[in-house]
Amino acid sequence: EDQDLLLAAAYVSDAQYNRNVPFETSPQAIRLYYFYNHWAMQAATYFFICVDLSLALFEEPALFPLPFLVTSIAEVLCLTAFFGRLVHFAKVTPQMVFWKDTKNICIMVTIVLTLVDLIVYGILEALNVYGIRWSRALRPVFLINFPESRQIRRAFRSIRNTLPDVLYVFLLFIFSVGTFSLMALKLFGDRGLKTVEGSPYFTNILDIAFELYVLVTTANSPDVMMPAYEFNWWYSLYFITYIIINTYIFMSVFLAVVYNNYRKHLKNEIRTLAYLKRRKMIEAFNILKVKVGTESVVKEAQWRRLVKVVAPDISSSHLELLLRILDEGQKGHVDKVNFLRLPDLLNIQVITINVKRHPLEAWMPRVYQSSASLLVQKVVRHRVFVWAYDVIILINAIFIALDEKNPFISYAEWLFLSLYIIEILLKLYTYEPRAYFGRKQFWNWFDTLIIIAALVATVANTTIQSARKYNSQQILDIVLILRILRLLRVIVSIQRFRVIVTTLINIGPTMLTFGGLVLVVYYVFAIIGMEAFHGRVHFFGPNSTSPDALTCGNSALRDSAFARGKYCRNNFNHLGSSLILLVELTVVNQWHILADGFALVTHQVAKLYFIGFHIVVVILIVNIFIAFILEAFFVAY
Amino acid sequence: EDQDLLLAAAYVSDAQYNRNVPFETSPQAIRLYYFYNHWAMQAATYFFICVDLSLALFEEPALFPLPFLVTSIAEVLCLTAFFGRLVHFAKVTPQMVFWKDTKNICIMVTIVLTLVDLIVYGILEALNVYGIRWSRALRPVFLINFPESRQIRRAFRSIRNTLPDVLYVFLLFIFSVGTFSLMALKLFGDRGLKTVEGSPYFTNILDIAFELYVLVTTANSPDVMMPAYEFNWWYSLYFITYIIINTYIFMSVFLAVVYNNYRKHLKNEIRTLAYLKRRKMIEAFNILKVKVGTESVVKEAQWRRLVKVVAPDISSSHLELLLRILDEGQKGHVDKVNFLRLPDLLNIQVITINVKRHPLEAWMPRVYQSSASLLVQKVVRHRVFVWAYDVIILINAIFIALDEKNPFISYAEWLFLSLYIIEILLKLYTYEPRAYFGRKQFWNWFDTLIIIAALVATVANTTIQSARKYNSQQILDIVLILRILRLLRVIVSIQRFRVIVTTLINIGPTMLTFGGLVLVVYYVFAIIGMEAFHGRVHFFGPNSTSPDALTCGNSALRDSAFARGKYCRNNFNHLGSSLILLVELTVVNQWHILADGFALVTHQVAKLYFIGFHIVVVILIVNIFIAFILEAFFVAY
Ligand code: NA
Repeated sequence: EDQDLLLAAAYVSDAQYNRNVPFETSPQAIRLYYFYNHWAMQAATYFFICVDLSLALFEEPALFPLPFLVTSIAEVLCLTAFFGRLVHFAKVTPQMVFWKDTKNICIMVTIVLTLVDLIVYGILEALNVYGIRWSRALRPVFLINFPESRQIRRAFRSIRNTLPDVLYVFLLFIFSVGTFSLMALKLFGDRGLKTVEGSPYFTNILDIAFELYVLVTTANSPDVMMPAYEFNWWYSLYFITYIIINTYIFMSVFLAVVYNNYRKHLKNEIRTLAYLKRRKMIEAFNILKVKVGTESVVKEAQWRRLVKVVAPDISSSHLELLLRILDEGQKGHVDKVNFLRLPDLLNIQVITINVKRHPLEAWMPRVYQSSASLLVQKVVRHRVFVWAYDVIILINAIFIALDEKNPFISYAEWLFLSLYIIEILLKLYTYEPRAYFGRKQFWNWFDTLIIIAALVATVANTTIQSARKYNSQQILDIVLILRILRLLRVIVSIQRFRVIVTTLINIGPTMLTFGGLVLVVYYVFAIIGMEAFHGRVHFFGPNSTSPDALTCGNSALRDSAFARGKYCRNNFNHLGSSLILLVELTVVNQWHILADGFALVTHQVAKLYFIGFHIVVVILIVNIFIAFILEAFFVAY
Repeated sequence: EDQDLLLAAAYVSDAQYNRNVPFETSPQAIRLYYFYNHWAMQAATYFFICVDLSLALFEEPALFPLPFLVTSIAEVLCLTAFFGRLVHFAKVTPQMVFWKDTKNICIMVTIVLTLVDLIVYGILEALNVYGIRWSRALRPVFLINFPESRQIRRAFRSIRNTLPDVLYVFLLFIFSVGTFSLMALKLFGDRGLKTVEGSPYFTNILDIAFELYVLVTTANSPDVMMPAYEFNWWYSLYFITYIIINTYIFMSVFLAVVYNNYRKHLKNEIRTLAYLKRRKMIEAFNILKVKVGTESVVKEAQWRRLVKVVAPDISSSHLELLLRILDEGQKGHVDKVNFLRLPDLLNIQVITINVKRHPLEAWMPRVYQSSASLLVQKVVRHRVFVWAYDVIILINAIFIALDEKNPFISYAEWLFLSLYIIEILLKLYTYEPRAYFGRKQFWNWFDTLIIIAALVATVANTTIQSARKYNSQQILDIVLILRILRLLRVIVSIQRFRVIVTTLINIGPTMLTFGGLVLVVYYVFAIIGMEAFHGRVHFFGPNSTSPDALTCGNSALRDSAFARGKYCRNNFNHLGSSLILLVELTVVNQWHILADGFALVTHQVAKLYFIGFHIVVVILIVNIFIAFILEAFFVAY
């Protein structure tokens, strides 16, 4: 009996959280499955994934160097944890299912490959031979393939499904770029034109194709056109045609194709999820059902026990509410149709609002209801009160912009803070405090936290300035940012701003999935980039007077746009700077200068790395991001 | 009777072409209305609009200077034509309606303003006083406000309807940029950092706000970050946060809001159009209806006369087909429901396919049906034939890329052309020529025209090369481009490419509307730009050795990025270069260098012109363009 309840509860739980893991139904397997889904086990898995990924910070080329022995022991530890998790999963799921699931195979293969790589690299290291830790690029496999990362996997699936359609557009696009390159070679190749830097203009078909690919990203506009345009205005038409076709039309078509597939795919996924959820609930129902007359139902007592297993923290009033919804006729049982609605109802957050009197009113009714007190409450509730404080915030902004060394202004700081605190107190006086700080009162929390942060920041600032000894730059900077963030209070008081920000906050969780996706791609590219380019470009510090500082320590960069732009810190010398560099490449602007720089210090083939990054990140992932924001806004706005 | 038919036909015609002009129903007014809608009158109107707009090419600052007297006479002529068109319209439409329509008021006001401006400028010119021809910026009013430009007006309405929603997002965006500017001032202002050019870094709040606005467009990434990043890697987080919030999220939200409004608006427009069309058809029906039994119908004879007035060129088989559709029961009359379907049916293109025998088969059946001939036909129909020619085209591309001065290669050119012509002849031998070159056989036409163009180009090239005297650069360039365009034949033979290109071609007509919209905005900005910046920046020719050439003839540009990038030809010295410059600004990259340059030669306020252009063109119009491509692709793909 208890065993049945646990099994049914597991099905309901899976339905509620959209988990989709087939598990064995033996009592032991069910208990193991509960343990598998325990938050502590999941947290531990994520912890080891984080440790494994962050090892790149400590391995050569390292931001914080650690000996190979230490990082390899940490890695083996992580691998053991992953293996343990997998063994646990194998005990839960039927063997047939386990071995058919590519996710599990992926994890096992990656563990083996990583061990092989570790051993080979260790031996080479001992023999003082140069080796490549290639298995590091496989680490994101763990992040993707554990069942917990359903969302990231879905995003990757979405990209994979887009590929065939994107491929044809991409081929046509490449064909177009190729045709234009040939045209450019014939039109400009023999004219003896020079670029701004004095090198020959459009004489080599490969260089032309690269330049024209860069023009699609707009990064070398209008420079790439200027020599031809100076020679004859007529040639500007060539470039304008190129930009209209390849930059505007093709890039929009990429967005359209990605977006179209994303929508189609999303619809299918939602349909499948709904189907699986229903099937699990039917299984749970079949376990618990009893016959009443001709109808199969779940008895009220059994249903209560089930819900208490599924949601141990549920309040009794919430439980009664659910029962009242699912057993409308109060027949003492829940029928099949209503039983299937349970997971959706459990996912709805219920807010218990108790309209209570203000504590002050209960405590001293006379004073709180006096005409003076009522006037105060009326003023606070009036919209002019809000506007007055908006004006105060704007004046505050001006004061922040002014020089803070002026003592008058630093006194004003305290004045503003007092005004804000008075505002909060007045609001707490007028509104019932427990309602004001209710669970869903996001904006009240936001407002109050900003003021508290500003208060803490100002106090910290004064303390630090009077102490004078302790002067950590980062603490000071954080304090400064906190003080300025108080301007965000303006958002709270303008209804339309709140709508926009609420929409953005609501898509936050999915945005995190997106962050995971980007992290995976960035990590792989960063590892490859570090293996290929580390140590080629050096940054000598901001005040270095070394002559090598002007060429980033590499004479191949002499007279290059890379060195002229002082881009030396944009290098692959450790994970941190690699990731920042990849962000810059995602923003696209000047990416060709960066690509050129790394091609100069290695080989022209290096440009393929940068083109590949552009295709994967900008054409695929950024477009999925835009598709995703568009879709979220259409639903929400 | 005849009068009624004309009136009904006018209603049907209006319904067919979605015209929406209320007109008087007196016999004279109807005849005037027919005349008003005559293609020659419309063509004349567009001709005068083109003349009026292109006057800017001949007025100071002129590409082809003409005396003020000539351009002003031409302008007065255009104004007279517009006024005549307006008077014509006033005679057609009821007076009340005419005076209530803002379009007509707009045109009249613009005519008066232009005349005033012409007179004032003429007097000032005579007195040798500097004057501004400000009314030139109003010229696009004529393009927008004549009833023929329904589509462009709709696009403008779409933008106007988007504005309120965009405005709030924009305000929040400006607020965000402002807050970040303040933060940047406090974080970096006192550090004594220097930019790559050696000027102080982030010390003035207005400069910071401009730099951060530029960062939203990505045009100064990563340069704007480098000094802070070099000082402390920690500061890169500030810029990354800024880019995620303002470049990625806000710019996507702009697209989402514009797109969302566009869709909503489009739906409404389509609904209104359908309603108006229906109402006009009901009016036409009411004029022509007769009672048959209890039912109101239009008699077949009357209906035939009506269609012949509406579509004089209709073939009798097409007319019979329409009648068979609308009078299914062959009762000799068309009822109301079917009558309303007429304009939609008229808009459907009917292709008459006559499956005919090949003329050669009729002429010499023995030879055409001989086994050798049948083999040829089978080969031509086989897909390997298509593939073989794709390979030939690719080999041809390689030959084009190689040096054409080699005589072997220039002979090969003739070989390829012969192969293509043989291909066309073989196809004409195999397929029935009239079917092959049918009206809707776009790809066959495309293929054949490309080959003919290549043939003409190669012949022209040989002639010119042998003549050696006549050597017009532009003719040679066009010949070259035509020769390379033959590579486009590859598209024809790959099905998926054809689908993509067909989709793009189908959205072509709406794209033209979009071109009109862009033209209007560009024209206004070009006129303002010429008035504000002409003569400030000079281009000295590509081979000039004048020392002024390095500063574009303006010492204010000494050591500026504008002069260093050799951007002298990017100026507002005439309409042509202004429009090219505006295209460069639309592409966005390096726009801040251009803005800085023109601010240096005038005043920092000039940057507002460039920011305004970015907001109007990139944030609004380009997003509408993307929205429009997305929508078109979702419908078509
Ligand atoms: Na750019």
